[in-house]
Amino acid sequence: MTYCVGIKLNAGLVFLSDSRTNAGVDNISTFRKMIIYEKPGDRFMVLLTAGNLSISQSVRELLQVEQLKEQDSDQPITIWNARSMFDAVRVLGQAVRHVYERDAKSLERAGVEFNVNLIIGGQIAGEGMRLFQVYSAGNFIEATPETPYFQIGEYKYGKPVLDRVLTPDTDLDEAAKCALVSMDSTMKSNLSVGPPLDLVVYEADRLQTDKVVCIDMQNPYYRMLHQSWGQKLREVFDSLEDPVWDESHTDTPLRTHAGGRSKPLKKITRPEEKLI
Amino acid sequence: MTYCVGIKLNAGLVFLSDSRTNAGVDNISTFRKMIIYEKPGDRFMVLLTAGNLSISQSVRELLQVEQLKEQDSDQPITIWNARSMFDAVRVLGQAVRHVYERDAKSLERAGVEFNVNLIIGGQIAGEGMRLFQVYSAGNFIEATPETPYFQIGEYKYGKPVLDRVLTPDTDLDEAAKCALVSMDSTMKSNLSVGPPLDLVVYEADRLQTDKVVCIDMQNPYYRMLHQSWGQKLREVFDSLEDPVWDESHTDTPLRTHAGGRSKPLKKITRPEEKLI
Repeated sequence: MTYCVGIKLNAGLVFLSDSRTNAGVDNISTFRKMIIYEKPGDRFMVLLTAGNLSISQSVRELLQVEQLKEQDSDQPITIWNARSMFDAVRVLGQAVRHVYERDAKSLERAGVEFNVNLIIGGQIAGEGMRLFQVYSAGNFIEATPETPYFQIGEYKYGKPVLDRVLTPDTDLDEAAKCALVSMDSTMKSNLSVGPPLDLVVYEADRLQTDKVVCIDMQNPYYRMLHQSWGQKLREVFDSLEDPVWDESHTDTPLRTHAGGRSKPLKKITRPEEKLI
Repeated sequence: MTYCVGIKLNAGLVFLSDSRTNAGVDNISTFRKMIIYEKPGDRFMVLLTAGNLSISQSVRELLQVEQLKEQDSDQPITIWNARSMFDAVRVLGQAVRHVYERDAKSLERAGVEFNVNLIIGGQIAGEGMRLFQVYSAGNFIEATPETPYFQIGEYKYGKPVLDRVLTPDTDLDEAAKCALVSMDSTMKSNLSVGPPLDLVVYEADRLQTDKVVCIDMQNPYYRMLHQSWGQKLREVFDSLEDPVWDESHTDTPLRTHAGGRSKPLKKITRPEEKLI
């Protein structure tokens, strides 16, 4: 399995990926799922991959040479000359479709689904930052202010904290912290997501970045985050009032609200009696 | 979808279920997923159901009359005369198998998977409390001190808090609070899980309970929990130090640990160059 998250903020972009790959629980390996495409001053892009590893590796390989031919132009579009992120993600989508043409039939014969999920984001000189999610069919969607992030892979465990924290105004370091907390929750609950982690933070309009780091479990910041988050979460939980069943003892009684659908649950006390 | 959780503690049992059912996102209804079987002083059982509603309703219906015939006895076993929870869950498993015999072929023709998941827990006079999860094949597993809870339905969003809080020594009110927080996180992230909620708390050896409540969004305790948890979670998040990229500024730098697999990520800066 895999967990990757890409975040688009007014201040820039944040990308985080794990690096565990498994074919069953008894065959676990480490593969990096992030790749950076950078021409300083001209373009900066990050690609995150999830799904079948043979497919995502083929897509990455093809993407280097993929050319999108336009009728109204004799100059084919590549990720290195695309004038917009939209064109770059179209090139990526075409690479996915080329891998599909090569492999899908054989995979199907082997009972393997053609499954790949990609996040690509970045900035090309002349336009703003953009973030996309690309599906197995090569189609894609773009992040918006209402939904400033995409997740691929094992996304559920780590989603609540993203929903609670991220807005377009979140600053970059806070968003990086949020992504790491999201990853920490995911690794705690799913063995198929694991370290080391690759983190990239990109500042708007820089068209390059030095903030690229590989984080393992000895990383002092990650260790602090892991320990403090777990401990303080528990403190918050303990600080919440327990339910009390007798209204006289509390202002927040655990009682049924009158009316609506909130009828108390009927009990079956004899075999014949049914639940209404 | 559905989210149900059953918890077994030394002090007793806690059961919580939502009541949203959906066939696609445009067909949402309310069905209670919890049912209580009680003969005060003799036995107390709670059944939680998830999966295909037509299957789970048929299982509940059949369970009332299901009889398990033993070779060495002419008195068939029902949930009302079973001498142990193990026998009671065997009766439930047989009810699942009878529904399978009736419906599975027709469902398959319609392209519908035979999918039902059940949690049943309780106590029968003469033995301790027990908690089981029953699968679509009618087979089942029992909760142990290492894993004192079972979830069915949309379990991922709400799992981390259960893992952080629950042990066999957790007290009943705290466990009820934990289950409600788990449900709150699930409802926040998944529209197919929704109110009202049914909560039952059973104290060990009582062989009956009065702690049965239906909680809707106007319930004062639930409202307090929902608001405080979200707000304090955010406070904890804010209280954690943001990563700093210059070691001189912090004791917990975001830096790559030397050695191991933690090599910094290579960038592709020319089309030819590959990621090592």
